[in-house]
Amino acid sequence: MMFPEVKAGVVGEFELIARYFTARGARRPEVVLGVGDDAALVDPDPDRSVVLTTDTLVAGCHFPTCDFPPAALGYRALAVNLSDMAAMGAEPAWVLLSLTLPQVDERWVEAFAAGFSELAERCGVALVGGNLARGPLAVSVTLCGQVERGKALTRAGARAGDALYVTGALGGGAAGLRALQAGAAIDSPRVAAYARPESRVQAARELAPYASAAIDISDGLVGDLGKLLTASGNLGAQLVARDIPLAPGAGLKDALGPSDDYELLLNIPRAQVSALNVERLGCALHCIGHVCTEPGLYLDGQPLTVGAHGFIHFR
Amino acid sequence: MMFPEVKAGVVGEFELIARYFTARGARRPEVVLGVGDDAALVDPDPDRSVVLTTDTLVAGCHFPTCDFPPAALGYRALAVNLSDMAAMGAEPAWVLLSLTLPQVDERWVEAFAAGFSELAERCGVALVGGNLARGPLAVSVTLCGQVERGKALTRAGARAGDALYVTGALGGGAAGLRALQAGAAIDSPRVAAYARPESRVQAARELAPYASAAIDISDGLVGDLGKLLTASGNLGAQLVARDIPLAPGAGLKDALGPSDDYELLLNIPRAQVSALNVERLGCALHCIGHVCTEPGLYLDGQPLTVGAHGFIHFR
Repeated sequence: MMFPEVKAGVVGEFELIARYFTARGARRPEVVLGVGDDAALVDPDPDRSVVLTTDTLVAGCHFPTCDFPPAALGYRALAVNLSDMAAMGAEPAWVLLSLTLPQVDERWVEAFAAGFSELAERCGVALVGGNLARGPLAVSVTLCGQVERGKALTRAGARAGDALYVTGALGGGAAGLRALQAGAAIDSPRVAAYARPESRVQAARELAPYASAAIDISDGLVGDLGKLLTASGNLGAQLVARDIPLAPGAGLKDALGPSDDYELLLNIPRAQVSALNVERLGCALHCIGHVCTEPGLYLDGQPLTVGAHGFIHFR
Repeated sequence: MMFPEVKAGVVGEFELIARYFTARGARRPEVVLGVGDDAALVDPDPDRSVVLTTDTLVAGCHFPTCDFPPAALGYRALAVNLSDMAAMGAEPAWVLLSLTLPQVDERWVEAFAAGFSELAERCGVALVGGNLARGPLAVSVTLCGQVERGKALTRAGARAGDALYVTGALGGGAAGLRALQAGAAIDSPRVAAYARPESRVQAARELAPYASAAIDISDGLVGDLGKLLTASGNLGAQLVARDIPLAPGAGLKDALGPSDDYELLLNIPRAQVSALNVERLGCALHCIGHVCTEPGLYLDGQPLTVGAHGFIHFR
């Protein structure tokens, strides 16, 4: 009637939501009312803070428009938000999904929902709300979690002398995308780090009691470390190149710059390092350097600068 | 490096967020940590349920691509979510904003933030998180609120004999959009109902103690009433045409069909009707009919049907 596209987009919306997005993901006792009303209702644990994060993936920007399978997109859209939740040391709990589609394609929606739900179930996340809209392909996810009051890992707790740790290996996102663009299949092991980034929720929950600060390094190790150091009072960091764990196919530049890795950088005070138990993390953990009082970032003693685009320029 | 668009999109993102989206909207005591970390932290009231809703507005679909000013878009993106919160009888509290922009235009962002923040402040909502992405213009908002446990207004509580009330006047969204398309200015009174829909949060909070069910009728009175009746156990409703309040410029078809109105439909048991106090609602309230046991919708005794697109066909 008004915008023909809107009204056409309404076709099947309610049926698709009922079929593919109702009672998906994990079941959680706090969820009083999930998908299907004007809003969802949850009763959080009164002893914990609620943690809220949102991220949008746009076709042609955050993932290739062609040949990116809907199941991988569904998985990835949740994974990038889980990474922010992990960086707070929080337990992911309830998720809302806004899906914008150029046309209603039930097979596509079914595959997307399967990828999304698989990861949601694995991580104990209940899908409690969302909406479908007609437009250029994009996915917007808002993830809510819980953390003991006063125990969240922010970016602001780093102190000079603290050790800097990263989960997993770095540069795998960039290497995986290169492999994809060079013709590797989306489900090949070489593309996995890009297509199906592992969530570090478990590792972060294990490490949170020992860490003083943490950040998700999806915008690049150097850029995100810089934000953490700024938030912690304009500190600096010394990194050791040989200690930075490289993912298969990745170079040091991939590991330092924006790589679409969803690993975590954790700041561990020296006194806590001996207490770390890496057995239960579900991933590797490497010390890559330490925090220093002099502002700036140093790699093997040489200053690093970050360009406007997040690229690294070796002086 | 990978997708040039992404990396170009990063230019200025953090500066724009810091300048226009930090500490915006109302200040709320529950917000422990707002914009600026990996996620936001809030400590909800332990006696209340948290209410979660999300909605996306896509350019060319939910608003005209041309000549829709950013301040109006910012206002509208929050207003449509406030309407869902109102329909739950909840108090809106914390909001996350995902803004997807074709290019970084600081003036545009400033105006958008002003429109968004104006309404957020007026309704007591704190902006606690969000992100900027590069892509076709779209806005995705997730609004969180609180409501006394067990007191949320769902769609499922209607009973035969209950009176049906609507807030405000209907069809104003459709009439406003027609005026806009016919050349009226976006800030003209004839367009106001479309460009700046009033939030019914206050009215819903006042009426919630008396209502047994409620729904936001942004998808159209007939379609949304149908959803409420289905959720309440396949009931029906009798509507009286002359009692349906029409907005200036609107006809009955506008009022019944999808009109982009953000009014509420409330279900009030007969015994509660005499207790209603319309003085403090901040809007008009009209009884437009009642719930009946026979499934289906009837206008002046004649059956109504809803087509696949939400249109109404008079049999």
